[in-house]
Amino acid sequence: MDKQTSEHLEKQFAFLNEADRLKSVLRATTLCDGSRPENSGEHSWHIALYAMVLAEHANRPVNIYRVIRMLLIHDLVEIDAGDAPIHGDNDPAEQERIEQLAADRIFGLLPVSQAKEFRALWDEFEAAETDDAIFAKSIDRVQPVITNLQTGGGTWPAYNVTADQLETRVGVKVSRGAPALWDHLRNRIAAYFAGR
Amino acid sequence: MDKQTSEHLEKQFAFLNEADRLKSVLRATTLCDGSRPENSGEHSWHIALYAMVLAEHANRPVNIYRVIRMLLIHDLVEIDAGDAPIHGDNDPAEQERIEQLAADRIFGLLPVSQAKEFRALWDEFEAAETDDAIFAKSIDRVQPVITNLQTGGGTWPAYNVTADQLETRVGVKVSRGAPALWDHLRNRIAAYFAGR
Repeated sequence: MDKQTSEHLEKQFAFLNEADRLKSVLRATTLCDGSRPENSGEHSWHIALYAMVLAEHANRPVNIYRVIRMLLIHDLVEIDAGDAPIHGDNDPAEQERIEQLAADRIFGLLPVSQAKEFRALWDEFEAAETDDAIFAKSIDRVQPVITNLQTGGGTWPAYNVTADQLETRVGVKVSRGAPALWDHLRNRIAAYFAGR
Repeated sequence: MDKQTSEHLEKQFAFLNEADRLKSVLRATTLCDGSRPENSGEHSWHIALYAMVLAEHANRPVNIYRVIRMLLIHDLVEIDAGDAPIHGDNDPAEQERIEQLAADRIFGLLPVSQAKEFRALWDEFEAAETDDAIFAKSIDRVQPVITNLQTGGGTWPAYNVTADQLETRVGVKVSRGAPALWDHLRNRIAAYFAGR
């Protein structure tokens, strides 16, 4: 194997080994059986599977392969920046600053052309302006709602989340890319809050 | 929302909730920091990312989107069948029988047309005859080797694995779909066994 190919592979493996640390970043949401917090690695797998299964419900035509690629890399910045729970009280500007630095460092481990490609895909996801990114965001937002419904409200009581907050913080974003999913869940969410 | 769409979504969510259980199936391999066993959910994410990064090293042209889809679903049968370590002493015929039943049950949770599509993709992965499946298998096999090299041999000593066994059990399969990856690792593996 020539030296150039070997160095190229070393960079790719360095990135993949660093990515392994995402399995140790814990989220606010638990597994569906409530047994432990979910980590951001397995969350990324689960939502890629969500996208694969739920593609037909996208509001506008999407390239589902690009959506899945976005979802596979969207949380890597959490290795440095940690997970910022949607119902938490973190400072969005500071969180964004730290995530930008994390993206520089982590995607920068890859060979140059691949680093640029992955970074562009992550930037597109974060901006949430293209149809692919809007649908990807919907999927990322809807999965914790399903999990919380499975676990009798999950982390909502701890964060004092109301039905109205769910609608404005989550429902609006899910509906933007996949309205059918939120229409389907709205009744189940109403039933949960009615029964508390 | 009409009743038909609602029932369709119920089936898709039933499948996605069942898939959550893959996060509780533990593998023989640990995380790269050795802190705990890896679960099959986060493993599935990691190898989908591997495929995304390493696509250029496929031996023959592949549709990397199909490869990633295969990798996202390839381990779901372990929810019923458990993980069969490659260096373990399980009965291959019995393992296959249990995995076929698991595939019937788990993919059968999806709406019919999607169940057929996912099952066909899993069957293709298992058969390892198409270029896409051969590359997907290479990626699935190479990730634990990298992890074991990161953790000073990882689970190899516990399973009494020799360099020759790695070559015949793993190297042949990795080389079939991605020879450059194994060429790159062979020296590192030799160095590990020389230094024990």
